[in-house]
Amino acid sequence: MNALTEVLDGRWAAVRGEIRAQTAGTKYPDPVGLSVEEHRALILEQLHELAKTGRPQLGFPSVYGGGDDIGGSVVSFEMLGFGDLSLMVKAGVQWGLFGGAVQLLGTREHHDRYLPSIMSLELPGCFAMTESGHGSDVQNLCTTATYDPATREFVVETPDRQARKDYIGNAARDGRLAVVFAQLITDGAGRGVHAFLVPIRDDDGAPMPGVRIEDCGIKAGLNGVDNGRLTFEGVRVERSALLNRYGDVGEDGGYTSSISSDSRRFFTMLGTLVRGRISVAGSAGSATKRALTIAVRYAERRTQFFRPDGTEVRILDYLGHQRKLLPALATSYALHFAQEELVSTLHELQSGDGQADEHRQRELESRAAGLKAVGTWHATSTIQAAREACGGAGYLAENLLPSLKADTDVFTTFEGDNTVLLQLVAKGLLTSYRHQFQDLSPLETARFVAEQFVGAVVEATAARKVVERIIDASSGRDDDDIVFERAWHCKLFEEREEHVLDGIARRLRAASQENAFEVFNEAQDHVLKAGRVHVDRVVLEAFVGAIDRCEDPEAKALLNKVCDLYALSNIEADRAWFLEHGRLTSPRAKAVVAGVNTLCAQLRPRASELVDAFAIPEQFLAAPILAD
Amino acid sequence: MNALTEVLDGRWAAVRGEIRAQTAGTKYPDPVGLSVEEHRALILEQLHELAKTGRPQLGFPSVYGGGDDIGGSVVSFEMLGFGDLSLMVKAGVQWGLFGGAVQLLGTREHHDRYLPSIMSLELPGCFAMTESGHGSDVQNLCTTATYDPATREFVVETPDRQARKDYIGNAARDGRLAVVFAQLITDGAGRGVHAFLVPIRDDDGAPMPGVRIEDCGIKAGLNGVDNGRLTFEGVRVERSALLNRYGDVGEDGGYTSSISSDSRRFFTMLGTLVRGRISVAGSAGSATKRALTIAVRYAERRTQFFRPDGTEVRILDYLGHQRKLLPALATSYALHFAQEELVSTLHELQSGDGQADEHRQRELESRAAGLKAVGTWHATSTIQAAREACGGAGYLAENLLPSLKADTDVFTTFEGDNTVLLQLVAKGLLTSYRHQFQDLSPLETARFVAEQFVGAVVEATAARKVVERIIDASSGRDDDDIVFERAWHCKLFEEREEHVLDGIARRLRAASQENAFEVFNEAQDHVLKAGRVHVDRVVLEAFVGAIDRCEDPEAKALLNKVCDLYALSNIEADRAWFLEHGRLTSPRAKAVVAGVNTLCAQLRPRASELVDAFAIPEQFLAAPILAD
Repeated sequence: MNALTEVLDGRWAAVRGEIRAQTAGTKYPDPVGLSVEEHRALILEQLHELAKTGRPQLGFPSVYGGGDDIGGSVVSFEMLGFGDLSLMVKAGVQWGLFGGAVQLLGTREHHDRYLPSIMSLELPGCFAMTESGHGSDVQNLCTTATYDPATREFVVETPDRQARKDYIGNAARDGRLAVVFAQLITDGAGRGVHAFLVPIRDDDGAPMPGVRIEDCGIKAGLNGVDNGRLTFEGVRVERSALLNRYGDVGEDGGYTSSISSDSRRFFTMLGTLVRGRISVAGSAGSATKRALTIAVRYAERRTQFFRPDGTEVRILDYLGHQRKLLPALATSYALHFAQEELVSTLHELQSGDGQADEHRQRELESRAAGLKAVGTWHATSTIQAAREACGGAGYLAENLLPSLKADTDVFTTFEGDNTVLLQLVAKGLLTSYRHQFQDLSPLETARFVAEQFVGAVVEATAARKVVERIIDASSGRDDDDIVFERAWHCKLFEEREEHVLDGIARRLRAASQENAFEVFNEAQDHVLKAGRVHVDRVVLEAFVGAIDRCEDPEAKALLNKVCDLYALSNIEADRAWFLEHGRLTSPRAKAVVAGVNTLCAQLRPRASELVDAFAIPEQFLAAPILAD
Repeated sequence: MNALTEVLDGRWAAVRGEIRAQTAGTKYPDPVGLSVEEHRALILEQLHELAKTGRPQLGFPSVYGGGDDIGGSVVSFEMLGFGDLSLMVKAGVQWGLFGGAVQLLGTREHHDRYLPSIMSLELPGCFAMTESGHGSDVQNLCTTATYDPATREFVVETPDRQARKDYIGNAARDGRLAVVFAQLITDGAGRGVHAFLVPIRDDDGAPMPGVRIEDCGIKAGLNGVDNGRLTFEGVRVERSALLNRYGDVGEDGGYTSSISSDSRRFFTMLGTLVRGRISVAGSAGSATKRALTIAVRYAERRTQFFRPDGTEVRILDYLGHQRKLLPALATSYALHFAQEELVSTLHELQSGDGQADEHRQRELESRAAGLKAVGTWHATSTIQAAREACGGAGYLAENLLPSLKADTDVFTTFEGDNTVLLQLVAKGLLTSYRHQFQDLSPLETARFVAEQFVGAVVEATAARKVVERIIDASSGRDDDDIVFERAWHCKLFEEREEHVLDGIARRLRAASQENAFEVFNEAQDHVLKAGRVHVDRVVLEAFVGAIDRCEDPEAKALLNKVCDLYALSNIEADRAWFLEHGRLTSPRAKAVVAGVNTLCAQLRPRASELVDAFAIPEQFLAAPILAD
């Protein structure tokens, strides 16, 4: 096997290899041109096929026939990202969100009763959190579940149109049971948001009494997934419908929980569901790699205009074209290694006894949020660039880029809106994860910062020691060639993060009871930048770590160039900030721009090799523009 | 009428008003969910309706029942951009490209014979230029038309698969006659690319003998347009099939033309077709305005999270959300006024006796190319931002943004690939339009620059005098409030253009016979920037001119703020360049960033007013997210 592919395959190489082998012989029917109903039917059929492969069961406990392999399960979702993304999302709903909620928020009784049929797909289900009026602010959603001690039931109710569950995958057509998030009311008091198992369809597929199901209709993409809306009118479910791992209601309606704060409890519950976000980042990465592979291969074949000597120019020979594709390709490599590190951390935290260190758990949630935001925005812009790089041909459905674009577009706003996610990252950094930061109001955050923030600290990543070694061993040179030195990149990324974070802290200290919202809001661009540059540093260090682990000298040299391009193009895009803050002089900033051009020229002959190393099954690259 | 709308409506206010009135009562069927064939049929039906309104005839000569109103005709296409863009494109193919080619490249005989039935849509046609292997480099396309004096016919031939006509609108289903661009061969010599009228279907719709028609199939968007592929095998057409305004073949095969150079002649022919590009820029603008209107209205209604005082926050109150939408809105205003100026220039040049000043004609072509590139990229990024700003709701087809995104996506690469177009702009500036710049090889351009380029000159725009007056009257202040001064903006834009252009000229002087391609290619990012910053200056000056013309003091004050935001957000995005070149100090650069935030806050309460002023017919804004 290709040495580069080996590095990329990493810790779960076996899972990846197995999936490639399973996929190799399979012919996937092309959904282009299908009606929405036909596409949905096709995806359900494929979902059943997928269930038989055993891969969706990887992340479930072995006592129920699962694989106890959390990391492998996320990698397996990531690999689904090479194919029809409707299948990835539908699988994510069934086994990640729905199955994951039952597994992680439920207890033994729920597991015994539901996990086997969820795993086999005998019981298709939904994850009903988002409401028409409440997306990002899930803590304030309005569906209620009121305990009635007389009948020992919960009554689930949609109080108004804004509380209707919306965009719910698997709801419009196939789901039978839904995990419904609702404000728990018992003993006359609200206890915050909890999850309840609510049957939405009977065995014949008819809506259950009191459940109204609407279809969200046609979407920009992902039309193989049946998103719908759910409204509940006095729907009664038994007491055991409450997924009671973090809070329970006794027969008499008494409420008990190991976590006293309602919102802290809710965010702890949410935190266990972090897998979903990580899987979205992973499959966005796969879709991006697929688009880049198509665009690079096309740019190697397509010629346009002639050189003075009469030879035709391959479009990848143009600097402008290289700049469209190669820095994005380098970033895809970088994000890949960051994703691998994230999956490893998840695997370690969730494979243990469930008593993970709180700081590490929140750091994981924060990095998952950050990487999801950065990775999905990268997907959107890169797939767009790939489409444009293929011209009119890239606009034809047969050449695959249109569905890649349409299907991934929603990734930036589902599973957490990217803008909101980057703010979470910043809040986490400001409070060193000592608070359940999702829950902190602007004022509380400001108060915390004023009282406890003593200066930005560079948080450890897995490769932190390697990075420190590299920085310590730096040449100390100060000519323009320094732009190709890893130590210089690492220091710039690190100093930027510290400076931006310290600046935010300074601004937030000005907040008082009266102006907390305004102070926060006026600094929102700064807050978002703090989240962004933190993620950038984590990503760079993950790349550095992967290179350090690589034992093949040729692959290592190539990866070093790719990492140079990632780091330099990132610095280039943000060089205004470095200039403004005295971290780059004008001549050095120009050397950065020139350095990106140099690296584009150097990597141009290796571009095909770099995309081939993704080892995407060829049936997902069968575009006519690559076949002529 | 709203004073802002009056300014926006400008010179062709009457055409705009009439279209609004005509549209007011009309209910347009929703194409979402239609199969490709149904959508195509619907669009053809709407095209026939459109033909009856008289609007598509505006740009044709009055002797054939047209309106002799070139500008009005372009504005009318622009207004089609508010609706289903398939209709706009299909209309553009029929009356703009196909009809326009017959009108502008043909002579009296062609006009008499074809214009009436083209105008009425009795004769649907195609514009067959692009080939599978030749998109941007149209001068080297490979279809041939060889004159056979024995029969006095041309023989049209597709020599190989790469020469197949591709992506041709109206070809797959409806077109009867095609304007085919082919290398003319007569008397044993090639005469460069000419246009020929080739029947592709008979009256029953069957392909003509020797013509093979394929369907491009499903596309990312614009599926109401039937794009197809045409292959010609020994297809014979009569001698009069040659559109002979710029070059003719006698019965004996003798070739005559008023322009001796083959490529100069070809680019002169292309130049007359500039209307197409201008229309694309205009309708991209309309689509962008529509997306912004939806997103701004939604952001005014949608709340998420609470202030410390318990009030819910409208999402447009968030700085991050303002930054997503308001600078883009300001840019849409700026581009609108630049488009208006461009249409006026076109109208004046093409309404005359056809003997336009060559310099002005090429300047027009260059600005059309540049504005098309900048405007369509703005459309792509803004419609994307609008989609994300509407979250999951923005992903549902019913909320209109998905088709806006999908339909406009190809605008950046059709009617000239944006990257190629920006290069044309730069070449034009480097050669002061004294050469037919599209035709200059890298070496010739370099030679020209070495011999004749004496320094960048700021080209006049319509508002140049106003700009100079503003610069002369500038306060000379030098505190951070200068960032809100128009004179300061204008000077920065101007100096940037001069500096970038002088820098390119310096680099190109290094080119020799041997290295011309490499020298050019290594500077390609610099060349593209030259094109870009030129367009930015032209756009800013157009905005300044529009404000100068505005007589309503309140509208004028508001437009001044919008122009501030356009200028400052443009400077902000490029502030690395200004810092690197000593045009901004670090504190001043930070003042620019702060200035954008200030303007966002100031314009936030005016956002609805600003989108309402576009006066988009309400039926094109009937999204359920705006109706609840």
